[in-house]
Amino acid sequence: MISKQPTADSLSDLPEWAAFESAAKNSPIHVHSLRLIQAAGIDLDISGQGSSPALVEATEALLAARQFNEQRERMLSGGMANATEERAAWHTALRAPAPIDEVAAERQRLNDFVRLADSERRWRNIVHIGIGGSDWGVRLAVSAFGYAGTWRQVHFVANIDGHAIQGGLAGLDPHDTLIVLASKSFTTAETLQNGQRALEWLQASGVENPYEQVVAITARPDVAKAWGVPDAHIFKLWDWVGGRFSLWSAVSLTTALAVSSDVVAGMQAGAAAMDAHFAQAPIAQNAPIQMAIAGIVNRSVLGYGSLNIAPYDFRLANLVPYIQQLEMESLGKSVNLAGDPVGVPTGPAVWGMPGTDAQHTFFQWLHQGSDGAPVDFIVCEQADHGWPGHHQSLLANCLAQREALLKGKTYEQALKECQESGMPQEKAQWLARHRVHAGGRPSNLIVLPRLSPYTLGALLALYEHKVFVQGVVWGINPFDQWGVEYGKVLAKGIAAELSGQAAIDPAHDASTAHWVKEFGASLKA
Amino acid sequence: MISKQPTADSLSDLPEWAAFESAAKNSPIHVHSLRLIQAAGIDLDISGQGSSPALVEATEALLAARQFNEQRERMLSGGMANATEERAAWHTALRAPAPIDEVAAERQRLNDFVRLADSERRWRNIVHIGIGGSDWGVRLAVSAFGYAGTWRQVHFVANIDGHAIQGGLAGLDPHDTLIVLASKSFTTAETLQNGQRALEWLQASGVENPYEQVVAITARPDVAKAWGVPDAHIFKLWDWVGGRFSLWSAVSLTTALAVSSDVVAGMQAGAAAMDAHFAQAPIAQNAPIQMAIAGIVNRSVLGYGSLNIAPYDFRLANLVPYIQQLEMESLGKSVNLAGDPVGVPTGPAVWGMPGTDAQHTFFQWLHQGSDGAPVDFIVCEQADHGWPGHHQSLLANCLAQREALLKGKTYEQALKECQESGMPQEKAQWLARHRVHAGGRPSNLIVLPRLSPYTLGALLALYEHKVFVQGVVWGINPFDQWGVEYGKVLAKGIAAELSGQAAIDPAHDASTAHWVKEFGASLKA
Repeated sequence: MISKQPTADSLSDLPEWAAFESAAKNSPIHVHSLRLIQAAGIDLDISGQGSSPALVEATEALLAARQFNEQRERMLSGGMANATEERAAWHTALRAPAPIDEVAAERQRLNDFVRLADSERRWRNIVHIGIGGSDWGVRLAVSAFGYAGTWRQVHFVANIDGHAIQGGLAGLDPHDTLIVLASKSFTTAETLQNGQRALEWLQASGVENPYEQVVAITARPDVAKAWGVPDAHIFKLWDWVGGRFSLWSAVSLTTALAVSSDVVAGMQAGAAAMDAHFAQAPIAQNAPIQMAIAGIVNRSVLGYGSLNIAPYDFRLANLVPYIQQLEMESLGKSVNLAGDPVGVPTGPAVWGMPGTDAQHTFFQWLHQGSDGAPVDFIVCEQADHGWPGHHQSLLANCLAQREALLKGKTYEQALKECQESGMPQEKAQWLARHRVHAGGRPSNLIVLPRLSPYTLGALLALYEHKVFVQGVVWGINPFDQWGVEYGKVLAKGIAAELSGQAAIDPAHDASTAHWVKEFGASLKA
Repeated sequence: MISKQPTADSLSDLPEWAAFESAAKNSPIHVHSLRLIQAAGIDLDISGQGSSPALVEATEALLAARQFNEQRERMLSGGMANATEERAAWHTALRAPAPIDEVAAERQRLNDFVRLADSERRWRNIVHIGIGGSDWGVRLAVSAFGYAGTWRQVHFVANIDGHAIQGGLAGLDPHDTLIVLASKSFTTAETLQNGQRALEWLQASGVENPYEQVVAITARPDVAKAWGVPDAHIFKLWDWVGGRFSLWSAVSLTTALAVSSDVVAGMQAGAAAMDAHFAQAPIAQNAPIQMAIAGIVNRSVLGYGSLNIAPYDFRLANLVPYIQQLEMESLGKSVNLAGDPVGVPTGPAVWGMPGTDAQHTFFQWLHQGSDGAPVDFIVCEQADHGWPGHHQSLLANCLAQREALLKGKTYEQALKECQESGMPQEKAQWLARHRVHAGGRPSNLIVLPRLSPYTLGALLALYEHKVFVQGVVWGINPFDQWGVEYGKVLAKGIAAELSGQAAIDPAHDASTAHWVKEFGASLKA
C-alpha cells in the first residue's frame, strides 16, 4: 500500500521551498548575460528568465528533497510513475532506439501496413477519428510536414458534434477511404459514435467489405475485434501509455500514411535523444529541468496565471493545442500525491498562436495588459521555402517581440517619440502615457536548426519532461486526469433525461433543469 | 483639447466602484433561480454568475458615474469614441439596415462583383491575404457555413512565414484564382509581401493580366491603386472602422464568394438587431451590459485572470481567435483615457476550443486546477445534420460540464463513489481526495436557436458591445492598440541588422545580440 500512496509533503511546508521562493524573488533577469542550453540538437535560451547563484543552489536542494533522481529513474525505467491509477507512464519505451520486443513488433506491423498501402497506391483518403491525445499529436505532425498538401487527403474527426463527421466525410470517395479509429479504451463515446457513422457511410455507398476499410489503434484489441475490426487491422497500445502520450504509438499510423513512416521514425529518434539528455545532463545544463524551474518560478513565486506558446512557424499551429493538453491535463490539479493541498498555485493556463498572426491578435495584451504572461518563443533557424526575405522578417519579428516584452518602453522614450512626431507638448505628454510598455516579461527562446521530424520529436519530449519535473516539484501526479471523468458521468445522466429515458433529476440547478426541458422538447420535435 | 483627452477617473478612486466591489463580493451564484435574457433571437443565461439586489443597484450607479449612456450614444452615432486616435469607432454603421450612402454604395458594388463572378462561374480558388482583423472574421464565417466544403476553395494566408504563402498557393490553378488583399492601411508588411508573392506566382504561370486577378479592400484606395490594383477591384474601408471590426466591411468579399452574399447580409442583419437591443434594452435586460458586468466582477473583483470560450459547435472553432482578438486587443491595457493607471485588473486572457474537444484537452484544469476560469458556453438548440443522437450527446455534454463546474464534487461524494466501486477503505479515503472538484466556477450559457448568419452576427455584436461596456467601466479606450506598434518598429531595426544593412545596435540585450549575429550569418549562408 505504501508504494501506491506516496507521501509527498505539501510543497509549501518544505524548508527547501521557502529557500527556493526567497532565492527566486531575488533573481532578476540579467540582460547582459547569455544563458544557452543545447539538447538533442535544439537550443534553449533561458536568458529571459531570472537567475542567481542562490537559485541554482536552491533548485538542487529542492529537487533532492523531492527525490527527483529516483522519480526520474522510476518513470524512465517503466516503474509505477502513475500511482493513483497504479500503472507506469512509459511512453519513452515507445521511442527507444532498441525497444522491447512487443513495441518493436508493432512498429514493424505499422511499417508493413504503410508499405503495402503505398505500393498499392491505396487509401487516397484517410478519416482519422480520435479525440484529445488520439488527435492533436497526429494533427500536429501532419500539418507540420504536410502543410503544402499531401498525396493522401486526411480529415480529422474528433468532436461528438455531428457536423464534425458530416464535414469529415463530405466529398470523399468511400471506395478509397480508410477509417482510422484511435481510442485507448475503445469506449470513447465520440470516437465510437463517429466511427459508427463512418461505417454506415461505407455501407450505404455499397462498399463490399466495410470493416476491411477500418483500422483500430487501442489497448483493448478484444473490444475493437468485437466491434468488427479485423485482427490484421488492430494495432496495439499499452496500458502504460497515457492517452496524451499516444502520439508515440501506432496512433501515428495516420501520420505515416500522410507524410511517411520516416516522419514517425524521425520524431521517435529526436524524442529519444531528448530522453537521453534528460536522463543524463547535469541539472544546470538539463533543458527540461531548467524550463520546469523557470515555469515554477513564474507560476508559484511570481504569480503568472498563464503561459503563452508562440511558435514563429506557420507549420506549428497545432503545437499550441498539443502543449495545451499536455500541460493542462497533467498539471491542472490542486492536491499532491498524498491527497493534500499543494499549497502553491500549480499548472498555468496554456494558450497561444503562431507569430506573426499572434502579434495581430493578442500581443497587445502581452505588452500592455495588466497581467501579462511568460512566453515560449519557438523558431527555426532555417526555412524550407525559397523566400529569404520572408524568413528574415519572421526572425526579426520574433526577436523584436521578445526584446520589447523584456525591455518595455519608458514614459520618457514614449514622450520623445511623440515629441519627435511633432505633437504639441500637452498632447505628447498625454499620449505618451498610453504608449508605455511595462517590460520585464519573462520568456524562453527555443531555436530548432530547421523543422525536421527529429527536431519536432525532441521539442515534444522537451515539453513532456518539463511537465514531469514540475509534477515532481509540486508533488502531484501528472499522469492521471480525474477531472475528465466526472463530466462524462454527468453527461450520461443528462443524455438519458434529454431522451426521456430518465426523469429529470430534482437535484439539478434551476438553469440546468430549464435547458434539459427545453432541449429535450426540441429534440423530440 | 478637452474633448480629445477625456478625463476618466481611475476606477479604483470612485466611490461607486467601492460600492460595486462590495456588492459583488456579497453576490453568490443562486442555484435555484433562472436568469435569462433574450436579445436579437439569442438566449443569454446568466444564472451561473453571482447576483443580488445590491449588485443591480451598484451597477446602475457605476454606469451612471461613467456617463455610460452618453458614451454609448457617442459610439453608436459615429462620434469620436476613439480619443487617442482621434476618430470614430462606427462599425455599427456598416451593418445598419438603412446605411449611409457611401456604405450602401460599397455593399452594392460587392454584391455586383459576386453576382458577376457567380454567373461566370469564375474564381474556383480564392487566396484571402490579410492578418488579424482582416483574417479571423472571414475565416470564422467561411468555416461556420462552409464546414462541409464550398464550391470555391478558399485558402487563407496571414503569417509572414513563407511557408504560409507556399502552402496557400500550392495546388491551385493560377488561371482561376482570385487574390483578395485585405489591409486597412495597405501598408501591413505581411499582407503586402504575401500579395507580392501571389502576384509573382500569377506572372510566372503566364497569366495574361495578373492585376485583373487581384482585389483590394482598404481605407487607402490610392495606395492600392499605386500597387497596381485596378479601380474596379478596390473596395473601400473607412478610417472609422477599426481593423478588428472590419468583418462588417467589404473584407467579407471572400465570405460572399465562398458561402454567398446572403451570409454576409444575414450576419449584418443579426448584428444590427443586437445593436438595437444594446441601444434600447434597460440595464437589467441588456445582454451586452449584463455580460460585461459579470466579466468585470470575475476579473476585477474575484480575480480570475482568464476567460474560457467553449463553443459546443464544431463549426465555431474560429470563434475563439476572433473573440480573443476582439477582447485582448481592446482590453489589454493598463491606463485609462486620462493616461492614469486603471487601479484594478483589466481584460483577461481569452482562450478556448470547441467542446467536446476541449473536454479531452484542458477541462481537467478547469475542474481541478488551482485557479480555474469563468467559461462562456455557446450552443445551438437545433443542429444542421441528420444524427439526433449526436446532437443529444453534444447538448448533454455542454450542460453536464457547466453543471460540474458549478456544483463541483465534495470529498463525501467522491468517497462514496470509491467505496461503491469496492475499494478497501484506506485506499478509498486516499483516492477520494484526488477526485474532489472545487465547484463554484462562474459561467454563461449562450443559446442560439440554430447557427444561421443572423444568429452568428448577433453573437459577434453581443461580444463587441460587451467589450465596449467594459472599456467604459474600466475607463480605457477599447479602440486603440498602441502595444501592436512598438514591436513593428523594433522588427524593422532588427531586420536591417539581419540583412547587414545596419550595424548591430549595442543597446540589445546579450541574447538578442547573440541571435541577431547567429541568424544573420545563417541568412547569408
